[in-house]
Amino acid sequence: MHAPGDVRVEERDDPRIIDPTDAVIRLTATCICGSDLWPYRGIEPVDHAPMGHEYVGVVEEIGSEVRTIAVGDFVVGSFVISDNTCEICRSGFQSQCVHAQFVSQVVGTQAERARIPYADGTLVATPGQPDPELVPSLLAASDVLGTGWFAAVAAEAGPGKTVAVVGDGAVGLMAVLAARQLGAERVIAMSRHPDRQELARHYGATDIVEERGDKGVSRIKELTGGLGAHSVVEAVGTQESFMQAVGATRGGGHLGYVGVNHGVSIPGDELFFAGIHTLGGPAPVRRFLPDLIRLIWDRTIDPGRVFDLSLPLDQAAEGYRAMDERRAVKVLLTL
Amino acid sequence: MHAPGDVRVEERDDPRIIDPTDAVIRLTATCICGSDLWPYRGIEPVDHAPMGHEYVGVVEEIGSEVRTIAVGDFVVGSFVISDNTCEICRSGFQSQCVHAQFVSQVVGTQAERARIPYADGTLVATPGQPDPELVPSLLAASDVLGTGWFAAVAAEAGPGKTVAVVGDGAVGLMAVLAARQLGAERVIAMSRHPDRQELARHYGATDIVEERGDKGVSRIKELTGGLGAHSVVEAVGTQESFMQAVGATRGGGHLGYVGVNHGVSIPGDELFFAGIHTLGGPAPVRRFLPDLIRLIWDRTIDPGRVFDLSLPLDQAAEGYRAMDERRAVKVLLTL
Repeated sequence: MHAPGDVRVEERDDPRIIDPTDAVIRLTATCICGSDLWPYRGIEPVDHAPMGHEYVGVVEEIGSEVRTIAVGDFVVGSFVISDNTCEICRSGFQSQCVHAQFVSQVVGTQAERARIPYADGTLVATPGQPDPELVPSLLAASDVLGTGWFAAVAAEAGPGKTVAVVGDGAVGLMAVLAARQLGAERVIAMSRHPDRQELARHYGATDIVEERGDKGVSRIKELTGGLGAHSVVEAVGTQESFMQAVGATRGGGHLGYVGVNHGVSIPGDELFFAGIHTLGGPAPVRRFLPDLIRLIWDRTIDPGRVFDLSLPLDQAAEGYRAMDERRAVKVLLTL
Repeated sequence: MHAPGDVRVEERDDPRIIDPTDAVIRLTATCICGSDLWPYRGIEPVDHAPMGHEYVGVVEEIGSEVRTIAVGDFVVGSFVISDNTCEICRSGFQSQCVHAQFVSQVVGTQAERARIPYADGTLVATPGQPDPELVPSLLAASDVLGTGWFAAVAAEAGPGKTVAVVGDGAVGLMAVLAARQLGAERVIAMSRHPDRQELARHYGATDIVEERGDKGVSRIKELTGGLGAHSVVEAVGTQESFMQAVGATRGGGHLGYVGVNHGVSIPGDELFFAGIHTLGGPAPVRRFLPDLIRLIWDRTIDPGRVFDLSLPLDQAAEGYRAMDERRAVKVLLTL
């Protein structure tokens, strides 16, 4: 991305092993994330940056200390590099690893090849070479599914719970899928787009709420005996959506937030008197990858349906435009 | 409180039973809370308001539907009215009860007598009439101990954990006590006052950190292998203290916040990238009262030591002055 709105596909040097814990992979597929739109829209600074942090591919080379990943393996990786051995990783928060780095900042996987540091701690090999129709779902696990899943776990979605999901983007839709898989009794998708409502229902939404802001909060309360939802997922990252999520959570309930907050300022007193649990941030996708790969491999879940436009990598610029203009929920880039 | 800084002890009408779920109690002792200083200092509006929300006393009269409390019982009550039967109460968040009311707003227990709504859901009777030396500790359970205890529970203090407590007021000191009782391995009190440091050590603090703000955060990280504390309690409620608490919590760690936030504005992106659990708000003291009463009755804990000045009720104005000028940590008012 040369500048906001200016995406070009250009030649870069081939990546190579630098540290003995590295792997180099050949990408099978990659994609464009909602968070890539922040710099595209000029909300985050950008200047000739390689882009991309979601990826699946085949291992081409490994460093001398890599143990769990072999050349030829098909792998799925997290959008945050982690060693998966430090105390923070072992507590399940690999996105806060002492060696954490964002793939978007140090790699850029909208590319043919990528060097992945801490390969053992970041990548997970699939049980074999996947059928082509599984690739989109495996790619989704890299961020959008992993993030939606984390949000639902953070919101403590589970049996007997009513879960409300703020945001009908790809992550919100994945949170709907996750809430349902985690056993939630009722999943309320907050969406005003018919096509996304349909996808939300496909993934297990039992109710749709079209209202936003205070009206959206009132509607959630109406649907929950005046109490609010047990579990709320925030998957947008604006001031309005965050406070809508706070308001929709019942006292003592759980809010999981994964929309990257831009310019959000949370009034301390509102959060205080809400009396709710919160957990958010960059998702520790690595924690969930083994389980998510299994669910996809067994065809229990089909997160790949969230990709509604597929383009070859050299048409990445059109992919950004389609997402920016909301003509596509999420764009897959093929190689 | 006629106005900020203007506290007077005056005659009010005797309280009487209004609803069949009410009880009228004769206060044995009451006290002044750190939160009473907000209106005293003019930070919250106040205009001829009855004050006080911490109380122990003897039941004088009960409504026809009161079942668990009898005339003559010695009772401890929560600073929030709760029915203790609704779905929110049953989930342990009595301070968010569908019938929740703040005692400070509807009762005012810096008084000789008080009407307590939802007596069964708000009050807990002690096993018998307490020895006089237990009264301060039982009174502490009503808010300051219950709030500190909730903060430690919200921060998931427990075996193997390092707990940092931001704030050396009465609530912070009670959080130190609670963290220790809950089995925390290490309890770091953040305090720069020698007398409060001593009390913190008495209640189980293993370390003292005098630095504040970013320097305080750095010191906590130094003491925790660079990671931050597993569990952090925020017991002040200012912008600096809140962000100090966020910064002191390790990724994936737990922040329990009970300082009433005044003018605090939490930067969404800082909270996001911290990747921490938070839980806060008015404490559901009622959840903990039976256990706290037992611990006090058995003389396992002595929270009453947090009162370092005792005055008769008619000298309440001097009590406010002493706390405002930080000459006293917490003032007990006798009747």
